[in-house]
Amino acid sequence: MGFINKLRSRWHEAETLLCVGLDPDPAKFPAHLAGDPDRLFRFCREIADATAQFACAFKPQIAYFSAHAGGEEALARLIAHIHAAHPDVPVILDAKRGDIGSTAEQYVAEAFVRFNADAVTLNPYMGRDSAAPFLAHAKRGCIFLCHTSNPGARDFQELVVDGEPLYQHVARTIASAWNGSGNCALVVGATFPEELRVIRELVGEMPLLVPGVGAQGGDVGAVVRNGRTADGTGLMINSSRGILYASRGEDFAQAAARAARALRDEINRCRKR
Amino acid sequence: MGFINKLRSRWHEAETLLCVGLDPDPAKFPAHLAGDPDRLFRFCREIADATAQFACAFKPQIAYFSAHAGGEEALARLIAHIHAAHPDVPVILDAKRGDIGSTAEQYVAEAFVRFNADAVTLNPYMGRDSAAPFLAHAKRGCIFLCHTSNPGARDFQELVVDGEPLYQHVARTIASAWNGSGNCALVVGATFPEELRVIRELVGEMPLLVPGVGAQGGDVGAVVRNGRTADGTGLMINSSRGILYASRGEDFAQAAARAARALRDEINRCRKR
Repeated sequence: MGFINKLRSRWHEAETLLCVGLDPDPAKFPAHLAGDPDRLFRFCREIADATAQFACAFKPQIAYFSAHAGGEEALARLIAHIHAAHPDVPVILDAKRGDIGSTAEQYVAEAFVRFNADAVTLNPYMGRDSAAPFLAHAKRGCIFLCHTSNPGARDFQELVVDGEPLYQHVARTIASAWNGSGNCALVVGATFPEELRVIRELVGEMPLLVPGVGAQGGDVGAVVRNGRTADGTGLMINSSRGILYASRGEDFAQAAARAARALRDEINRCRKR
Repeated sequence: MGFINKLRSRWHEAETLLCVGLDPDPAKFPAHLAGDPDRLFRFCREIADATAQFACAFKPQIAYFSAHAGGEEALARLIAHIHAAHPDVPVILDAKRGDIGSTAEQYVAEAFVRFNADAVTLNPYMGRDSAAPFLAHAKRGCIFLCHTSNPGARDFQELVVDGEPLYQHVARTIASAWNGSGNCALVVGATFPEELRVIRELVGEMPLLVPGVGAQGGDVGAVVRNGRTADGTGLMINSSRGILYASRGEDFAQAAARAARALRDEINRCRKR
């Protein structure tokens, strides 16, 4: 099953719009993992196993692995574990790649072959031919940066081009010209709920990956109200730090499960308003 | 010595504006390397040793390593080898990273600690705070995408904002607001020489990394004419495929050296016109 269908099944069957971000930072790990040479994998595996029932997707952020020698091997094992133990939950590789076509083919091999991710995040700045090698994989999701969650989103993404902000032009271009295989999605930050509303109007039913609730300050109610589709889905609302570091004790995985359940429930309450 | 000074020394002392791109594609390797499990490293090391005397910089493209399990270890050893054997030639990690601040810190660790690159390429779409963790390392170079060499550069980079194309706004913003430590540079494709001329006028003496001669069709004469600074430097003119795959025989490194020397000489002839 392709990424988009896997995601839709998960939204409806598990009744969750929560995406669990896997951003493992050893400086924040529980003390008992400090000396473990395999701590990146073990920490994330325990989090994944504890939170899978509440998740519509997992989103490992590759930078947290690539910062360490051998980190990519931990990431590959983690994704393989998720596929084996939680086959209904798609895995989004958060990598924000983007390069000329010949190089993009290498990044396709990284994301879809080596790591076997169901979807990957991509940066649209280099245009259509930089995305084409990813778009050609119809069963994999291509999730493009549109309006991001950070303050710097205002620097270029909000510049007005042809009478509309750049991020709207990006959303419109991807929805109308890049989505021939129906495998596109967009990143829209929870910290910009008005922009989220506009993007939802522009892109119809296209899934939106929404980081920025929790540590970054985005409001769950506003995200659900402005971002959901007519059937009350359409969103992957990501939380990383709020789940991963809910406890720094040996109970970190149980605490993560409680935090994931609470956020899933909060999202679902907002969906019913 | 910081990246920019290392580069300037190289321009003047070795009299070369040639950047040698290290994009190792095993499908194009000489037959005698086919079965070698360490072929990524060995191929690139031989190329680097043969071409260093003609290079103002080396630019490994990380995707060609990350496409393979264990590829990052080959990349780390390659960069360590270049630093040891050719300490005057700076290494640019071509990775086009860009993410929110907390994640950018992890990418800083990847580029400047794990791989110990002198400079890294970055994507500006996410704005100032996504760049700040890199910019804070004053001795490392931050080379931002501005107007890229591929056809898709037209899709978003040329959109008109406030009366000027986006890529010019990006160039102006980086030159005026992000370059407080003097460690910025821009990527400008050789395939767009008019845009290169405009960018040079906007950014003064800022170094420009120029891919797109050779396989992509950019003209060396136009690049030098439109991109050089008053002292005839200011450019890192990159060639990857034209050097790496000059021969597919056992003489590949010697052939690469001949191709590198020829392109360096062609660039220098153009500088004297």
